[in-house]
Amino acid sequence: MLVSNIFLCQLSEAFAQSDPLPSWNESPTKKSIIDFVTRVTTEGSPDVVPVPERIAAFDNDGTLWCEKPVYFQVAFAFDRIKAMAPQHPEWKTTQPFKAILHKDMQALAASGENGLLQIMAVTHAGMTTDEFSDAVRDWIANARHPRFNRPYTDLIYKPMLELLTYLRANGFKTFVVSGGGVEFMRPWMERVYGIPPEQVVGSSGVVKFNAGLNGKPKLVKQPKIEFVDDGPGKPVGINRFIGRRPIFAFGNSDGDLQMLQWTAGGTGARFMGIVHHTDAEREYEYDRLSKIGKLDKALDAAAAAGWTVVDMKTDWKTVFSSP
Amino acid sequence: MLVSNIFLCQLSEAFAQSDPLPSWNESPTKKSIIDFVTRVTTEGSPDVVPVPERIAAFDNDGTLWCEKPVYFQVAFAFDRIKAMAPQHPEWKTTQPFKAILHKDMQALAASGENGLLQIMAVTHAGMTTDEFSDAVRDWIANARHPRFNRPYTDLIYKPMLELLTYLRANGFKTFVVSGGGVEFMRPWMERVYGIPPEQVVGSSGVVKFNAGLNGKPKLVKQPKIEFVDDGPGKPVGINRFIGRRPIFAFGNSDGDLQMLQWTAGGTGARFMGIVHHTDAEREYEYDRLSKIGKLDKALDAAAAAGWTVVDMKTDWKTVFSSP
Repeated sequence: MLVSNIFLCQLSEAFAQSDPLPSWNESPTKKSIIDFVTRVTTEGSPDVVPVPERIAAFDNDGTLWCEKPVYFQVAFAFDRIKAMAPQHPEWKTTQPFKAILHKDMQALAASGENGLLQIMAVTHAGMTTDEFSDAVRDWIANARHPRFNRPYTDLIYKPMLELLTYLRANGFKTFVVSGGGVEFMRPWMERVYGIPPEQVVGSSGVVKFNAGLNGKPKLVKQPKIEFVDDGPGKPVGINRFIGRRPIFAFGNSDGDLQMLQWTAGGTGARFMGIVHHTDAEREYEYDRLSKIGKLDKALDAAAAAGWTVVDMKTDWKTVFSSP
Repeated sequence: MLVSNIFLCQLSEAFAQSDPLPSWNESPTKKSIIDFVTRVTTEGSPDVVPVPERIAAFDNDGTLWCEKPVYFQVAFAFDRIKAMAPQHPEWKTTQPFKAILHKDMQALAASGENGLLQIMAVTHAGMTTDEFSDAVRDWIANARHPRFNRPYTDLIYKPMLELLTYLRANGFKTFVVSGGGVEFMRPWMERVYGIPPEQVVGSSGVVKFNAGLNGKPKLVKQPKIEFVDDGPGKPVGINRFIGRRPIFAFGNSDGDLQMLQWTAGGTGARFMGIVHHTDAEREYEYDRLSKIGKLDKALDAAAAAGWTVVDMKTDWKTVFSSP
């Protein structure tokens, strides 16, 4: 009896250890991931892919971490405005700053794209790249999410972290391909996702070299958008930064559709996945009608092509990386 | 006697095997490289650098391979014009194409920047990225250098290949940071340098996503320059693609000056190197007065700051990768 208990215990432990995705419920979703990775990594399999070509691309907002109630980079920009307000008394009476300081979302929306560009100009430009990285690191360490009241980097999806680790253990190189600003993501992604700066693809602003003084050159961020890594920009960003087509891609919104199409369009085995936010209780529930993270055309495309769609509510045992 | 001979033999073999840079003559140049790598990789050394931060950036033209009599990408463009000419009878009478077909360098020069843009438009645009890669691979396999009469990829510098290998064996991630077109370089650099596409930074043209037919999306190259990765563009390109500052950089011309300054401007141990073309017999001899690969300000900066300058004639035992 005792012996058989110990045996069962060990068996169950061995089983637990061999499960690379313990936060995923046993379901066709989990099976589709493991089947794909097994197919492309088993020597002698007709679908085996050489290690250098095992490129995996992940959207960030809504795919690796939460994106509600606003993209976290927008929260960062608003917090910067609040922190900088004492040095800018004129903001008390000037839009769109006044709207942010008074949490007047209607006035903010009314300021439109021009208002957004002004916000980006004061929060994301006029400083060196090093100064901006410091500001991001400081915010990541101190800011808290309004609903969950904890650091934003606690709102990373644990099942997706396990997936990143599982892919890397199988020879994949994991990339982030996000509409977010590349310089907003790089300062913390290596620590949080294990993804180094050179594997982060994102939107960017113009940066200018300045020879500086005493052999201390600077790169200064300009208030001008250079590249938007979203929608049709994602395959362009992948081509520009990575230079080869992923065989594995994961997104969560229509902004990821073209990346998924580009991945699907290559030859050989491919995996296309979508995180469907179906869990209002543990996270959020949204898709076709949402302004942030709208999932409509990509959901239809997934159904038509048989891509994997994660049902957050039923497929994920745990949602967030920190309890 | 016999025993001691065997012993000496083994000793010499062990020594030969332990020399990571056998094509470099024993000189202060070689010593400066090995000393630096030893300093930043020896555990417990005050200068040790964590593996993820061991970023090395190399210019390509004139640093890793030959750049005379013209940049090899220009030779590629001219060869493309010649190959496409039968489909373009109008080129017989239109500049700058006529000039290329008749090897009329004076007329070509007279066509100026506008002529160059026209050449780039017909040879580097109006096709998919995949078609362009195929054209580059085909050219690399078949074209021959006018003076040395062998494939362009035989004109890689053997000492620099050894250096790339040596750095990687010591935990460095090696990047190319070149003024050349990123899509011209990526198709062959992995095979020739061991540098994968995602570690190649270069100039680029605008690329557009096209959803295509039957689930086969395309990326189509447009006749518009997007980014010039040269001079002050190099630190910008490094920031954009790599996202961290190199601790090791190698160039050969004034177009590399800002990359070397940016590398030098960081904290901790750094290595800045310049290939000085001093060998008219085995390769070419040029510096301050050369139009291609002009080395003037960067040579002065190197002297002032104590950067390593390779004297090709005396520092390199062998120049090219293939005899």
